[in-house]
Amino acid sequence: MPRWRPDARERLVLAALDLFTEQGYDNTTVAQIAERAGLTKSTFFRHFPDKRDVLAAGQGTLSRLLTEGIAAAPADATPLAAVAAGLEAAGRAMTSFNRELAPRLGAAIAASTELQERDALKQVGLAAAMAEALRTRGVPDPAAGLAAELGVLAFKTAYARWSAPDNELELGELAPAALRELHAASAELT
Amino acid sequence: MPRWRPDARERLVLAALDLFTEQGYDNTTVAQIAERAGLTKSTFFRHFPDKRDVLAAGQGTLSRLLTEGIAAAPADATPLAAVAAGLEAAGRAMTSFNRELAPRLGAAIAASTELQERDALKQVGLAAAMAEALRTRGVPDPAAGLAAELGVLAFKTAYARWSAPDNELELGELAPAALRELHAASAELT
Repeated sequence: MPRWRPDARERLVLAALDLFTEQGYDNTTVAQIAERAGLTKSTFFRHFPDKRDVLAAGQGTLSRLLTEGIAAAPADATPLAAVAAGLEAAGRAMTSFNRELAPRLGAAIAASTELQERDALKQVGLAAAMAEALRTRGVPDPAAGLAAELGVLAFKTAYARWSAPDNELELGELAPAALRELHAASAELT
Repeated sequence: MPRWRPDARERLVLAALDLFTEQGYDNTTVAQIAERAGLTKSTFFRHFPDKRDVLAAGQGTLSRLLTEGIAAAPADATPLAAVAAGLEAAGRAMTSFNRELAPRLGAAIAASTELQERDALKQVGLAAAMAEALRTRGVPDPAAGLAAELGVLAFKTAYARWSAPDNELELGELAPAALRELHAASAELT
């Protein structure tokens, strides 16, 4: 993977995550984030409306990539193949910055109830968006809801594998592979 | 089902839900909840530490019932059968009060972002608790996580069916049936 050099926006995200981990989400101010990133408060506000948006921006992008990928799958794709297409699209769009972010994001979430709540909301929001994209393709319930949950679980699993120190595979391959594993596991639940 | 007469605690929950729906969660005070229920503020505080606990209490009970049901399943039960045992245990413990609550809970959640966030957290929390109960039984991942997600989806589906006006079936039957449907749907995703 090419060597990665953060731009201003990315430096703000990394500074915010480190501060959330060190001193908690609630105790961290925009001024502190800007200072840690070596930038001014007004630079912060050129990139983000507020502290809470530092993490929300990535979620919006992820949700869009997943649902666009599902929508763009061939008309005759099975529900699982459509979800795999969404995972592949989202996985391909993730950069080395997203990978750098993973351990810090994990640490910040582990340290903060507020961020755990946001992470839970994010999971439920992603599942709802993917289920809706599947229904738009004509997939009925409960298949749409189920395929969406499998998609969220697969993305979480693949993201963890991708960001492991010794991994050399691409997220765009790992995510559909995790989905196939989950579906295979489903057959072995009884 | 026998005719249901709410006790003080139940009247407080109903009053709170109605007020959350009418004027929003944030705008509702403990004093207003007590007044609507025809009770005093000190009666409220004998039952709940705070406004946010009015809804959290039921969630704790549900989580306990589901995980105890999973733990109590026969040692040779498949992961799906263990989840079904949890759903059955939780379903059997639900009273006509829980059923009365359903449409009001739905209305309050639809009206409040704060309650939507809590509902999302609740789903993620229930799935995590069920997955942990399955891992304790020796179910490996990804099967444990997957079976837990199926369990949450099944409970949601069954609860909606149970609380429909014309339903005459018991939740203790509806929930395992919804789980079987979901598992069958899983085989049809490809």
